Amino acid sequence: MTIILATNQAVCLDNLLSQVDTSGIDYTIKTNAKGMPTIRGIGSLVDATEQEIGFLANAKFFDLLQVTKAGAVILPKKAIDALPADVPFTIVECEQPYLLYARITQWFEKAKFSHHTAQIHEKASIDSTAKIGKNVTIRALAVIEANAVIEDDVVIEAGAVVGEGCKVGQGTKLYPNVTLYHGVEIGRHCIIHSGAVIGADGFGFAPDSTKEQGAWSKISQLGTVIIEDDVEIGANTTIDRGALANTVIHRGVKLDNQIMIGHNCEVGEHTAMAACVGIAGSTKIGKRCTLAGAAMMAGHIELGDDVHISGATGVMSSITKPGRYTGAWPIQEHRDWQRNAAALTGLYELRRRLQKVEQFIDNMDSKE
Amino acid sequence: MTIILATNQAVCLDNLLSQVDTSGIDYTIKTNAKGMPTIRGIGSLVDATEQEIGFLANAKFFDLLQVTKAGAVILPKKAIDALPADVPFTIVECEQPYLLYARITQWFEKAKFSHHTAQIHEKASIDSTAKIGKNVTIRALAVIEANAVIEDDVVIEAGAVVGEGCKVGQGTKLYPNVTLYHGVEIGRHCIIHSGAVIGADGFGFAPDSTKEQGAWSKISQLGTVIIEDDVEIGANTTIDRGALANTVIHRGVKLDNQIMIGHNCEVGEHTAMAACVGIAGSTKIGKRCTLAGAAMMAGHIELGDDVHISGATGVMSSITKPGRYTGAWPIQEHRDWQRNAAALTGLYELRRRLQKVEQFIDNMDSKE
Amino acid sequence: MTIILATNQAVCLDNLLSQVDTSGIDYTIKTNAKGMPTIRGIGSLVDATEQEIGFLANAKFFDLLQVTKAGAVILPKKAIDALPADVPFTIVECEQPYLLYARITQWFEKAKFSHHTAQIHEKASIDSTAKIGKNVTIRALAVIEANAVIEDDVVIEAGAVVGEGCKVGQGTKLYPNVTLYHGVEIGRHCIIHSGAVIGADGFGFAPDSTKEQGAWSKISQLGTVIIEDDVEIGANTTIDRGALANTVIHRGVKLDNQIMIGHNCEVGEHTAMAACVGIAGSTKIGKRCTLAGAAMMAGHIELGDDVHISGATGVMSSITKPGRYTGAWPIQEHRDWQRNAAALTGLYELRRRLQKVEQFIDNMDSKE
Repeated sequence: MTIILATNQAVCLDNLLSQVDTSGIDYTIKTNAKGMPTIRGIGSLVDATEQEIGFLANAKFFDLLQVTKAGAVILPKKAIDALPADVPFTIVECEQPYLLYARITQWFEKAKFSHHTAQIHEKASIDSTAKIGKNVTIRALAVIEANAVIEDDVVIEAGAVVGEGCKVGQGTKLYPNVTLYHGVEIGRHCIIHSGAVIGADGFGFAPDSTKEQGAWSKISQLGTVIIEDDVEIGANTTIDRGALANTVIHRGVKLDNQIMIGHNCEVGEHTAMAACVGIAGSTKIGKRCTLAGAAMMAGHIELGDDVHISGATGVMSSITKPGRYTGAWPIQEHRDWQRNAAALTGLYELRRRLQKVEQFIDNMDSKE
Repeated sequence: MTIILATNQAVCLDNLLSQVDTSGIDYTIKTNAKGMPTIRGIGSLVDATEQEIGFLANAKFFDLLQVTKAGAVILPKKAIDALPADVPFTIVECEQPYLLYARITQWFEKAKFSHHTAQIHEKASIDSTAKIGKNVTIRALAVIEANAVIEDDVVIEAGAVVGEGCKVGQGTKLYPNVTLYHGVEIGRHCIIHSGAVIGADGFGFAPDSTKEQGAWSKISQLGTVIIEDDVEIGANTTIDRGALANTVIHRGVKLDNQIMIGHNCEVGEHTAMAACVGIAGSTKIGKRCTLAGAAMMAGHIELGDDVHISGATGVMSSITKPGRYTGAWPIQEHRDWQRNAAALTGLYELRRRLQKVEQFIDNMDSKE
Repeated sequence: MTIILATNQAVCLDNLLSQVDTSGIDYTIKTNAKGMPTIRGIGSLVDATEQEIGFLANAKFFDLLQVTKAGAVILPKKAIDALPADVPFTIVECEQPYLLYARITQWFEKAKFSHHTAQIHEKASIDSTAKIGKNVTIRALAVIEANAVIEDDVVIEAGAVVGEGCKVGQGTKLYPNVTLYHGVEIGRHCIIHSGAVIGADGFGFAPDSTKEQGAWSKISQLGTVIIEDDVEIGANTTIDRGALANTVIHRGVKLDNQIMIGHNCEVGEHTAMAACVGIAGSTKIGKRCTLAGAAMMAGHIELGDDVHISGATGVMSSITKPGRYTGAWPIQEHRDWQRNAAALTGLYELRRRLQKVEQFIDNMDSKE
């Protein structure tokens, strides 16, 4: 069920790989008696067929090589050495099989949409003061507001809204129903998925009892959001504009769906966050961090470079030391949980009682 | 404040019930001296008025029957037997009062929109290659892209975007601003609420140090999303497309708002998830499971059939045994929490200390 | 990097403040030898330049007054008394510096958009039965459906959808791609950010084994959502319509992004919720409460007035006593967490073992 044919036409393996962006990756095709295979798709070792290419990225799946029907497999030398001499598939020797696989998927994606040509739909709404670059696609019912700048090769899908004075960098793609508020800047080669909202007001209010006890006065959010190059932003993720300064997402950051980044945050280069992560305002995250799904960070704190936060974990104070950090109640059968939760609410007291017992024993010891 | 008049016209109770879809439900109307009541709405026992029908779905609300002003009440026999002979409301005897109530709400909903007729708005944007069935409604500023297939009786509300090559099954409704990415398949009689994004790229990247330490190379997501029949998907929920295989939501699944389903997940028949649940990639969930609000599941794990996860609980490994599972810190006054949290961070040490005490006592015991 | 010039024109400080809404706020400008400063922007004490106004809202930042380059600073008397006589900035004496700052940001925001004039875009889609007030702005590709009522001074941005029979109160602003389902009522001076969905169906299903084991029958949601005046709703927040009654958000409530409010909930005046909070159905929250980020509440419970819930905390039962409440596992290095989590799953047993030790010691004591 899982074969992906990116094109109806087949392509020879060597021809395919010559078209893939393999910059920085060494590979060697080792054909067997069958000669150079014809490739129509890419698949996992379990699902791939004779006209598909598979890969081994993790040694623990080595045994799948005995059963795979893939016509070609990308493998590191170590795995090749452990194989019998006469495997039924063509070997692509490569020390970075997972990376080569990634690059090949990009080729298939491009092939899938090779029939698309740049065009501006007549039902798009483009303000006359907007500047539109070359080779730009703007689909039906997208809206480009006053003084926006759309650089070359940008794709703006149906229903996306680019606010007044926004800048969208070269080669960036906005999927349908993305919203950019006024003044937001997006770098080059970014991908922003549907429903993402970039530049909504940060959550700022001053208590205002001049009107009524408990009332709030809005702090207008005068900053904006700056997204640097090569950033990907998932569906329905929200990144708020800064209050006085800007919210900044640095180069190469990858954000999954339904992430919330508060106002004035800064996220360092190549940091990746899985879905449902929330970062409260004015928090600064270093480079190459990872935050697993549903991790949460309080506001006005910092994460150093190379810090890794586990899923469903709340970060309430700054962490500067690289490493992995966790805080989440382990799941249990409900009845066991009930008992332990009850005990937990008196844990402090339990510790005190243990101290008392220890003191008693210490006294006994010293008496003897 | 809570009376709902679905129509300005009244309808006799027997006439109403004859129009409701009561397939599989037995019921008997037991009129009293007042004769068959006229119904204008449906309400809770607390709020319903003389021209409304109420229901008793839970025995603990039995006492409300003494005060309700409802003109008719749906009741099981057991409750009727416990009532005095002369209640002021008409009794509808039914052993499934909650289900009959549900079916009646569906009738009121339909009545509310009986003035709607199928039409394709002139301000919708429909690609000339799309195939549109009979009796289809497409509202203003909806977008149907190339080669999409829209089956009979489908309703596509304002601003919704149906991507290239999508298929939308018979009788399905997309609310405003829904986004379907290219190639997504939606079954029959589904309901997809506003802001939902189906088929955005799964979150997949390979480390790519060929460019820079810590950089990522995108794994293009070549699969799609398959939604089977009778599925409901809540507002702003996101379901990502698969990497090489597909993400599959089976028949009858009900998803609330702001749920995130990662790429390559599979959700079994009739499983229901409350709002804010997150499921990481490649996780497989069985049939008839329930996940309460804000439950989270790690990736690459499984939930068997009939497993029930409590709210705000993280599932970090597979669970195959049916039952209810929980893992969430119980709330306390902040000061108590501070003390217990401090004790918790040394719980392992506490256990060690207790073992030492126990050993000491064991030794004493053996000396005596 | 953080200076915000709201206008290209400078304005004298006294002139600026005379234009700001200072109702209920006392202030005095204390010029120094330089005379009344010219203001072009507003900034933090760290970033503000000579033509900008700053403020001191928190005594702990007092030392920044020695280094700030701001041309004017808003200060309470206590801070002024602690300053040397000859500070280089103009002092604006005010006992509510944070509130005055908020009001000034509102002025800058207005100035930024002073070139906007009310207009209805020719590419908007407005049903002929809708009633549109005076001075209303409706941007490109917004949709106003049948019988909707749009009061004076309303702004509806691109791609927003106002459903059939909705009412949008005077001076309210809907940002791009907001969705209001049919019949929703929004009060005056509200702000609703992009991607918010108001009035989607609540999550209600009755078990329906007449069709198949485990199947569900939809409970149509016949209520609506009522939003009172002065409410702000964040990006991608969802508020579901009631089943039989309405979901009600009272006056002055402030909701951040990606919040979920279930059907039939009621949120009291001036309550504020940070991002990612989830409230299950039929829960009632009092006045002036705060819920920090990612807090979660179960359904059918209550929060009294002035209750404050910490971040990432689940509320599983009603809380009536004002105060602060918390429940979240403290983060640790992963290895420490593993040990403590293991100990936690046997905490109940640990408590039993301690009791045994205590009894042993008690017995020893009584023997002596």
